[in-house]
Amino acid sequence: MELFYAYEVAGGMCLLDAEESGHCVRVLRHRTGDEIDVIDGLGTLYHCALADDSAKGASARVLSCVPGFGAHPYRLTIGCCPTKNNDRFEWFVEKATEVGVDEIVPLIGDRSERKVYKTERAGRIALSATKQSLKARIPKIAEPVSVKDFLRGSGGTGGTGGTAIMADIPGGDRAPLRLIAYCFEDESVPRRSIKEVLETFDGTDVTILIGPEGDFSPEEARLALAQGYIPVHLGSSRLRTETAAVTAATAVYLRYL
Amino acid sequence: MELFYAYEVAGGMCLLDAEESGHCVRVLRHRTGDEIDVIDGLGTLYHCALADDSAKGASARVLSCVPGFGAHPYRLTIGCCPTKNNDRFEWFVEKATEVGVDEIVPLIGDRSERKVYKTERAGRIALSATKQSLKARIPKIAEPVSVKDFLRGSGGTGGTGGTAIMADIPGGDRAPLRLIAYCFEDESVPRRSIKEVLETFDGTDVTILIGPEGDFSPEEARLALAQGYIPVHLGSSRLRTETAAVTAATAVYLRYL
Repeated sequence: MELFYAYEVAGGMCLLDAEESGHCVRVLRHRTGDEIDVIDGLGTLYHCALADDSAKGASARVLSCVPGFGAHPYRLTIGCCPTKNNDRFEWFVEKATEVGVDEIVPLIGDRSERKVYKTERAGRIALSATKQSLKARIPKIAEPVSVKDFLRGSGGTGGTGGTAIMADIPGGDRAPLRLIAYCFEDESVPRRSIKEVLETFDGTDVTILIGPEGDFSPEEARLALAQGYIPVHLGSSRLRTETAAVTAATAVYLRYL
Repeated sequence: MELFYAYEVAGGMCLLDAEESGHCVRVLRHRTGDEIDVIDGLGTLYHCALADDSAKGASARVLSCVPGFGAHPYRLTIGCCPTKNNDRFEWFVEKATEVGVDEIVPLIGDRSERKVYKTERAGRIALSATKQSLKARIPKIAEPVSVKDFLRGSGGTGGTGGTAIMADIPGGDRAPLRLIAYCFEDESVPRRSIKEVLETFDGTDVTILIGPEGDFSPEEARLALAQGYIPVHLGSSRLRTETAAVTAATAVYLRYL
């Protein structure tokens, strides 16, 4: 099954941009009349008939649609500090998208080695991984924001969750779960495992923060706790930032399996 | 904490090869008398004093040791078909090592696009990830074997598990769990989720088979079931081969968290 992305769906027509059109018409040689599957990136799959097989700007007429195609029964926001090596963060974006994530917020921490992050490539990777894993909703890649500003409520949709989405999810009305994976080297703060905390949570809106290679600063951790974030650990293995982020996403995915 | 790998530990001395010695002496500028931490790749950490700071072949005297350093409470073998793109399989090797795996068996399936696999690079990646994630046991990278030969008991340590290791693990004496993640497109075979099967398992010796991009062949699947493998699914997301393998490793890791 091959999915195409429509940048606009209106009047019963799905419009493909130059890249998607080229792939559909030039590479896969689809012609007017061929039936294709198109996603709007917002959660709906459209089964269509190709109406205009222009390789620069193809369009397809909607025959039927499947709302919530490939959707998961939770809403997950992962705030993660981009790694020094960009490939590692992009790998996390791809894998988290395959497993199932709704929003990724690049966080700039006090100890982040990478203080600047451009989201364009991550957006393309998220689109590609969404199509590859047969989902219709592309995770949002938020603009980078400092850990402290994110905790204060700006940046990303944070906890607020997007009512439109949450309304569709059983338990979406319950209080959200806010977790911070923090090493707390001094161990002054007792932590439970992410698995234990997820299993005792009866809602579906989860936000998880993953720090940079040098971990969150004590100030960031204190602010998170003050904002109601629950400190969790991911087990005894020392995981790289991007591995911790994917492990956290997988823990949520498995929780709702 | 920086770990070095000793290719040999004998007579109270740890011997480092040229690469490890160069990293220890030339890069990190350790000198005779410095205390360093060395792993034997078999599960033991040795706290040592550098005895010979030769950048070509350094040696260190053992001061104390920690058996089972960074060990996990299960024994996991993952048989996975190498991906067409080698980077993806190597990424799985790195991530599974960080999370915790004991043996990786490159499987050549009837539908594998990659029929040949060289294990040398994967071995280096496993060593590097073992040190990076603060473990003392390097996962074994078995020689490639066909899916059918593996199922017939040749290749890897398969289910047999390595008594020496299992003796150290509670539940290691119980019957092993054999799982095959197979799409069973025809759906003729009922599958349970890997999470459900793991939660009802009271042992600690787990083997999981992950097929190639084109999935296992019906013959391979039939042979697996005949050999007592339990068919499982990894949830509704369509995961790439390497993502499925890491998700399976993470499911086991979280099961014993």
